[in-house]
Amino acid sequence: VYVPDLGAPGAEVALSPDESHYVARVCRARVGDALDGTDGRGTVATLRVTVADREVRVVVERHERRERGRRAWLLCGAPEGRRDDWMVEKLAELGVERWIPLDCARARWDGLGARRPRWERLAIAALKQSRSPFRMEIADPVAAAEAGALTGAAAVRWLGRAGGMPAPGASTAGLLAAAIGPSGGFTRDEEDQLERSGFLPVSLAAGRLRTETAAIAIASVWAAGM
Amino acid sequence: VYVPDLGAPGAEVALSPDESHYVARVCRARVGDALDGTDGRGTVATLRVTVADREVRVVVERHERRERGRRAWLLCGAPEGRRDDWMVEKLAELGVERWIPLDCARARWDGLGARRPRWERLAIAALKQSRSPFRMEIADPVAAAEAGALTGAAAVRWLGRAGGMPAPGASTAGLLAAAIGPSGGFTRDEEDQLERSGFLPVSLAAGRLRTETAAIAIASVWAAGM
Repeated sequence: VYVPDLGAPGAEVALSPDESHYVARVCRARVGDALDGTDGRGTVATLRVTVADREVRVVVERHERRERGRRAWLLCGAPEGRRDDWMVEKLAELGVERWIPLDCARARWDGLGARRPRWERLAIAALKQSRSPFRMEIADPVAAAEAGALTGAAAVRWLGRAGGMPAPGASTAGLLAAAIGPSGGFTRDEEDQLERSGFLPVSLAAGRLRTETAAIAIASVWAAGM
Repeated sequence: VYVPDLGAPGAEVALSPDESHYVARVCRARVGDALDGTDGRGTVATLRVTVADREVRVVVERHERRERGRRAWLLCGAPEGRRDDWMVEKLAELGVERWIPLDCARARWDGLGARRPRWERLAIAALKQSRSPFRMEIADPVAAAEAGALTGAAAVRWLGRAGGMPAPGASTAGLLAAAIGPSGGFTRDEEDQLERSGFLPVSLAAGRLRTETAAIAIASVWAAGM
């Protein structure tokens, strides 16, 4: 279960309505049952159910901190239609640390009102699915021109582009920053600016990929290089 | 445009209703316009529109054969719900040669009646999207136990599994066969049988992946190793 505010061992915590429903109704947990929990920021805990009602309460028996080993940030232009939902789900499953929507000349991330909360729910579901103690962070949209400044801490920067060089080995230590253009592609100016900021054009497949496919492909190449 | 039966240069061919609509209504092509066409089996052609009506007709001006370089077959158990559609679309975009649904102990590909034609349409759309002259072949479902015999021609065989070894370099020459379990996973028996058939367990990410995510991740690792 996902418990954003895990207390110290001995603390009693109330689960959110979603998690309470999942634990009490879907898993049919009872008082005294043990659960695995995480705060999505690297803490994994063993929890014991103390109240199994509409609101489920648990007591923290033990907890342990995990550190992220390899890290990836994905900067991504807007795909067509509603393809953002499953892109978010898949990037979270693959273990991307931070997803950063990029506003580009050819496509902007407009009207995020209802999407943001849905993305957050998808990221939490993916964390449970992948049994990871790390929840993907979802950043506010930034302009493509700011991508270089934003990723100053990255050890390696990739720019997905048909005709780029093959991804140079996936065993990236430290932080990888990867940029993917929107459905209409980056403009020539945007690409030039990214390259000047140290983004290396890498080719992901023989054919041209949609935005969401390229994003998942580049994250997969990174994720496989454990 | 996709023209499964491209004739020799000089031949006149009628486009399918879908392609006719696309050419005449969406692209608003006129008599005399040139189009790029492919038969999805490696032939690329320059076509000239001779009739731009409800049925569009074209004459083949030139054509050229391309050979597939690297090749991948994906053998895949059934994912949850309707996640097969976008899995098919993404595998086709990434350039997989053949997609083979696997019937497994924990999930079978039942009721393919309506899905098959939809998958075919998705594979054709992906071929156009990726500007590839190769259409992904969609095989009939086979039993997991037959995977070894079916992939006798493969140079390398991978089995996606959490806790396997890192994918050993993506620059596979020849044919790669990759097997991914259904949403409930392969049984121990199925895994043993695949391993005895030469499938090497490879790990794709730090966390556990859904079936469709694992299929796309393994195809991405292969596709990036051009």
